[in-house]
Amino acid sequence: MATIVLYSINRTAQTTVRQCLIPYSKEASRVDSHLSVFLKTSVRRLTSLPRVRWVPNATGVRRGAVLVAGAAVTVAGFVASATHFQRAEMASVIPKTEEEDTEIAEKCKTFMSPPCTDVKVLQQRKEEMCTRMEMLIMETQAEFCRALEEVDGGKFKVDRWERKEGGGGISCVLQDGRVFEKAGVNVSVVFGNLTEEAAKQMRSRGKVLKGKDGKLPFCAMGVSSVIHPTNPHIPTVHFNYRYFEIEEGDGTKQWWFGGGTDLTPTYVNKEDGAHFHNSLKEACDKHHPQYYPDFKKWCDRYFYIPHRGETRGIGGIFFDDLDSPSQEEAFSFVKSCAHTVVPCYLPIVQKHLNDPFSPEEKDWQQVRRGRYVEFNLVYDRGVKFGLATPGSRIESILMSLPLTAKWEYMHEPPKGTLEADMLEVLQNPKEWV
Amino acid sequence: MATIVLYSINRTAQTTVRQCLIPYSKEASRVDSHLSVFLKTSVRRLTSLPRVRWVPNATGVRRGAVLVAGAAVTVAGFVASATHFQRAEMASVIPKTEEEDTEIAEKCKTFMSPPCTDVKVLQQRKEEMCTRMEMLIMETQAEFCRALEEVDGGKFKVDRWERKEGGGGISCVLQDGRVFEKAGVNVSVVFGNLTEEAAKQMRSRGKVLKGKDGKLPFCAMGVSSVIHPTNPHIPTVHFNYRYFEIEEGDGTKQWWFGGGTDLTPTYVNKEDGAHFHNSLKEACDKHHPQYYPDFKKWCDRYFYIPHRGETRGIGGIFFDDLDSPSQEEAFSFVKSCAHTVVPCYLPIVQKHLNDPFSPEEKDWQQVRRGRYVEFNLVYDRGVKFGLATPGSRIESILMSLPLTAKWEYMHEPPKGTLEADMLEVLQNPKEWV
Repeated sequence: MATIVLYSINRTAQTTVRQCLIPYSKEASRVDSHLSVFLKTSVRRLTSLPRVRWVPNATGVRRGAVLVAGAAVTVAGFVASATHFQRAEMASVIPKTEEEDTEIAEKCKTFMSPPCTDVKVLQQRKEEMCTRMEMLIMETQAEFCRALEEVDGGKFKVDRWERKEGGGGISCVLQDGRVFEKAGVNVSVVFGNLTEEAAKQMRSRGKVLKGKDGKLPFCAMGVSSVIHPTNPHIPTVHFNYRYFEIEEGDGTKQWWFGGGTDLTPTYVNKEDGAHFHNSLKEACDKHHPQYYPDFKKWCDRYFYIPHRGETRGIGGIFFDDLDSPSQEEAFSFVKSCAHTVVPCYLPIVQKHLNDPFSPEEKDWQQVRRGRYVEFNLVYDRGVKFGLATPGSRIESILMSLPLTAKWEYMHEPPKGTLEADMLEVLQNPKEWV
Repeated sequence: MATIVLYSINRTAQTTVRQCLIPYSKEASRVDSHLSVFLKTSVRRLTSLPRVRWVPNATGVRRGAVLVAGAAVTVAGFVASATHFQRAEMASVIPKTEEEDTEIAEKCKTFMSPPCTDVKVLQQRKEEMCTRMEMLIMETQAEFCRALEEVDGGKFKVDRWERKEGGGGISCVLQDGRVFEKAGVNVSVVFGNLTEEAAKQMRSRGKVLKGKDGKLPFCAMGVSSVIHPTNPHIPTVHFNYRYFEIEEGDGTKQWWFGGGTDLTPTYVNKEDGAHFHNSLKEACDKHHPQYYPDFKKWCDRYFYIPHRGETRGIGGIFFDDLDSPSQEEAFSFVKSCAHTVVPCYLPIVQKHLNDPFSPEEKDWQQVRRGRYVEFNLVYDRGVKFGLATPGSRIESILMSLPLTAKWEYMHEPPKGTLEADMLEVLQNPKEWV
């Protein structure tokens, strides 16, 4: 028991309570009243952590309300079962010198699936950026999936897959849920030698790469997700955070981070837009005052559908090739972004959970989903790269596509309608903060 | 009256009765019993024309049954209105020396819309291939649209559009019909000077082009169509016939034809497949014994979705760069193909018109429609070229997309099901004749 609590309390300020506790709710089978009381206390203590920010100020909902509701569900789950708790209790007898290694092993137990890389390897190489990033993407996947499961009531289907050329991934998909029509959260960790074509592409992006015997070992990893809710008043969200590392002939490493989080609503909602962008801005501002304005513009430019003359959604942030000011600082920024995914999206989901909607509103959502498909299949670099890469897992690449979409010929919302308002915003990206 | 009848009887064997008569059914407002009797007689006479072949032998349905039913509807329409008839009667006083010109003007009246090129220009240049091809594509559009309208009961929405860089088109779309979820038949006639990028592409296809002052005037035209029926037992059909002409610096012209017709069923139906492919083979065999086998293979190769390891449908024929044995012979082949569209598809529609279907079958159709979207947006050269061409009309390019489509994560039909049978055929293209 000590270990769980220690773990919960030791976590950095960048971790939400949800992440620490929800995993246990699935496996436990019994618990005494002492533990129940103790956990309730821990939850209360943890709610005061600076990063626990779930409820948008703009909506006027009381700060912390959602979190406490979520915690109550968690504790209830604990009462039902305690297998995991027992395992954790056993782990607590491991001598303190192995504490760090234990932390990796313990964290791994909270993931949706064991990580792609063997836990022992992760422990041996715990200082390396590849390990730290793999832990972050696994943590992000688990945190987000569990937050979504909690609000939906459904469970993610977890698929582990391997790539025969090296590496693999973990795809989590929740389909036909109560809240989410299709929700996908994917982690992949791939490695091998860069193909000549890929190396050429890298060079065209200004990266001078010198291999050894023509070989350039690389490691690429990331977490990516697209969530398509059923209710047209709950927007679609997408995020992706990734890390790339190439070893040159002389042993030096080139590395960079990329990623972003962006929102695609069916209808304009200024409060939602402001909450979403403000959350991202806060995460950015901690690292550089120029990050938010620059990455916001980059996002609007990237998620643009030229043949429609409109953006895919209301944007967010997008960046690539981030290799400064230092690896530590860049990682820290990516970590802030990853930890902002739940607090920037879930309050919007909660807010619109029970919004009524008409068949016409659902129809407009389906038309917008069609545009989403157009962007993803025609322009998205990740999808294009994935479809053209031998050995890639198609179902994981295309899980970003909505469950259903529609193409109506000459669909033009009449002027003055809410649908026309949405189009106007997509045709002329606006500032939200 | 004489003119209509003359026109109907003068038409070549490559024209179906439908094409001659259906246009009149829309505009006429009165007719005497003499005309009614005369038309019924003409229809009977015309049913014996060699190209009137509507009912697949494979199904065992009586030859001509559908046609006669269609003709009856046409005559009934005639009784209802006769404006067009009056116009035609007036045209009959034009002296015989202008007969040929009159024929173009008269034919144009049967189209869904006046042709892209001014009728006077067509008359002046009636011997030119550009004119003959424009007449053919307009005729094909009208013939097909009217055959579909007749079976559906709905009406096509007709949009004329212009391209500021030169040329324009006519898009006909029937959406949410009784039989067709979305049916699009598009004609376009564009001209101008080839961009450097396009000229480069042409050269990479082995075409040596010498411009004058760097200019290469071109003319491109075609008819293309995709029909998505509601009932999953009625397959989707696609066809496209096109002509390209480039004038070099010394005044010589390079030209070629391209096109094809292919079927995308949701379920395997051997009879339908055999009828469809046999119809195309017959059209091909009249011109060259190697056309069908070669163009059938080309079709299977072209409509292939590499990331799925399956073809889009059960194929048909596909060809490009056809510039032999002579322009006359190539055009004659394309004409045969164009005139085969109605007889290769409509009998299949008629046959399955009232097939019952389950929600599961509809669902499988929607999943297949998703694959259709994947092919069209990721691989189709025409769509890619269209989306990348400035001034192109997006709604006409993307009208090939289904009204609705679905992407279910990891959709895998269980072995032994009809859905698995379909997949097997798509993974291993078969011979149908």
